[in-house]
Amino acid sequence: MSKTIAINAGSSSLKWQLYQMPEETVIAKGIVERIGLNDSIFTIKYGEDQKFEQIIDIPDHEVAVKMLLDQLIELSILGSYDEITGVGHRVVQGGSYFDKSVVIDEDVIAKIEELADFAPLHNPANIMGIKAFQNLLPNIVSVAVFDTAFHSTMPKVNYLYSLPKEFYEEYGVRKYGAHGTSHQYVAHRAADMLGRPIEELKIITCHLGNGASITAVDGGKSVDTSMGFTPLAGVTMGTRSGDLDPAILPFLMDKLNIDIKEMINILNKKSGLQGLTGISSDMRDLEANTDKEEVTTALDIFADRIRKYIGSYVTVMNGVDAIVFTAGIGENDANARANIINGMTWFGCELDPEKNATRGKELDISTPESKVKVLLIPTDEELVIARDVEALRG
Amino acid sequence: MSKTIAINAGSSSLKWQLYQMPEETVIAKGIVERIGLNDSIFTIKYGEDQKFEQIIDIPDHEVAVKMLLDQLIELSILGSYDEITGVGHRVVQGGSYFDKSVVIDEDVIAKIEELADFAPLHNPANIMGIKAFQNLLPNIVSVAVFDTAFHSTMPKVNYLYSLPKEFYEEYGVRKYGAHGTSHQYVAHRAADMLGRPIEELKIITCHLGNGASITAVDGGKSVDTSMGFTPLAGVTMGTRSGDLDPAILPFLMDKLNIDIKEMINILNKKSGLQGLTGISSDMRDLEANTDKEEVTTALDIFADRIRKYIGSYVTVMNGVDAIVFTAGIGENDANARANIINGMTWFGCELDPEKNATRGKELDISTPESKVKVLLIPTDEELVIARDVEALRG
Repeated sequence: MSKTIAINAGSSSLKWQLYQMPEETVIAKGIVERIGLNDSIFTIKYGEDQKFEQIIDIPDHEVAVKMLLDQLIELSILGSYDEITGVGHRVVQGGSYFDKSVVIDEDVIAKIEELADFAPLHNPANIMGIKAFQNLLPNIVSVAVFDTAFHSTMPKVNYLYSLPKEFYEEYGVRKYGAHGTSHQYVAHRAADMLGRPIEELKIITCHLGNGASITAVDGGKSVDTSMGFTPLAGVTMGTRSGDLDPAILPFLMDKLNIDIKEMINILNKKSGLQGLTGISSDMRDLEANTDKEEVTTALDIFADRIRKYIGSYVTVMNGVDAIVFTAGIGENDANARANIINGMTWFGCELDPEKNATRGKELDISTPESKVKVLLIPTDEELVIARDVEALRG
Repeated sequence: MSKTIAINAGSSSLKWQLYQMPEETVIAKGIVERIGLNDSIFTIKYGEDQKFEQIIDIPDHEVAVKMLLDQLIELSILGSYDEITGVGHRVVQGGSYFDKSVVIDEDVIAKIEELADFAPLHNPANIMGIKAFQNLLPNIVSVAVFDTAFHSTMPKVNYLYSLPKEFYEEYGVRKYGAHGTSHQYVAHRAADMLGRPIEELKIITCHLGNGASITAVDGGKSVDTSMGFTPLAGVTMGTRSGDLDPAILPFLMDKLNIDIKEMINILNKKSGLQGLTGISSDMRDLEANTDKEEVTTALDIFADRIRKYIGSYVTVMNGVDAIVFTAGIGENDANARANIINGMTWFGCELDPEKNATRGKELDISTPESKVKVLLIPTDEELVIARDVEALRG
């Protein structure tokens, strides 16, 4: 009997989930927000709807982890630190080094730090989470689970950009993708739901949250994905632009008199649904404002860009058996799903409107006649992390 | 009986074609290259394979046009300047102003000049061609035919980028597309070949030359196209990158210590097939070097990016009746066409290998069983220009 904790550390946050393994039951979960700022927010959910919350200044990730462990003991969720037998960390960028989860050692940390060049917002935060646990729980196995690993099976034709080849060879500029753990999890669940071996299936997985990416999963392997060198690329997102004509950048930099850093910041933080509407990056806010033309246009653009990726991935795999929706929007937003799938009759997709009215549970939401199955599958990245820890704890 | 000249002026070149109208027969055609440089090259083709060529310094477009007109008289192709009754100019960027060809007046020139902001390499060159003819043939009708006009029917959902909306409203940042005259011409020829009204047809036109773009033509109207705010966007081209993760730009600018202008210059001039192979931007050179891995990878990437656009445009139109290939590569390169279409059996496309071995003439190159017809159609932008001149000459 062992307890494994799955960690997703951001620059000012730490999300966690504590599992009883191998039963895979969630014992407790929570989030620490505003780390390094004042009035940090510390939350634990456990038992039957029980919740512990505290507002307190938490200066860094190590203090956050110490507080978390002590509070788990305080709440009698843990008897002692020793009960935790493994910790798994989500790491955003694994570059070309990591095609699967690994036990963290000095070399792994060095490589994750090196890759911060590709993911300056994410990898350094992941390292803070890793080091905080290493200092407090030095004797347990610590595992890195990479967002990019599932995409390491992409063929060169799909990961190479049409750039001078030395940009790839010397600087590593290529498509790495993201959300890999989620795409992998829901693709395998889809095969289970369809009752067929994943090796035989062509699946398009749509992870639609505030960040969004589409993946072509052929025979269980990621063969293409919409995010690119960074998570800015691909479809329209909450605040991100997705793919662009690069020549727009110098034009706007000149008009706005800003530098490239500020330009990219606008593309990451002020574009997407937020930019198109000027109202919100959140689908729920937008769907409450569909009397405004810019909102309906933005929702149509959101659906259109995803549908285009689906069509292009049908060509990549020369077919598709199932389209999967997951993550915040994908699991909960029936309108968004309908917007995407309706109008794909030529592809043999037909939604069952009643089934599509479902939120957050596994269901085939297509009609029995639909040639391509459309599946709603809640993602569970934390569970994949816990499983990988358990597997590598060996 | 009238003679109309169709002009395509670049910054250092002037391509032209002289038509007998309304018969639409080509009397002569030619090109002036290296205008403004030393050893300019002046070529006229006429009659039965006759050719006039001269190497001489030509300082500007007006001198080039004067030389051209005088040489046409010298060769007895023209009796006098007066025989030319109309001139049509290809203009790359018509912005939101022009949804069709127009007779050129001061206001039109002012707008084309204003739009140079969007097409700094092209519109000023087009203006040089227009002014050269206005000075030498002040009394004939002069018509502007815009590369963007055919795409003016695109719906907002397809031409808007997922950017803050004021970038569109205040600065005109949107998708304009290019090669419109070519896409329009071949789409109409496709309907003729299929013997069906264009209003009923869903056609995907692939203009594949050194520049390349894919257009979704629904009911005769462009509803989406792969080029964007500028001709840098879309598929892999001879030297252009096509679509990119914008976050690649600051990363490379930092690594290479270059500014945004130089970066965009690399994306326009040193990327695409040239950049991927380090050998050539020309398909013929590459197909002679398929023993090199980087060449076969580049050819696969070229086909893949086009196929992905085809798949995405099938979703845009919810179907497709025909796929059309045109321009240098599209008309002449059977390997490229096969690379693109093979592996699209799921879409109901099947090439007839024998028919596909054709070069440069109108032919249905798909099998009789192919659900989606694949058509080879040589483009003729000059003819469209001549027809528009004739129509507006009234």
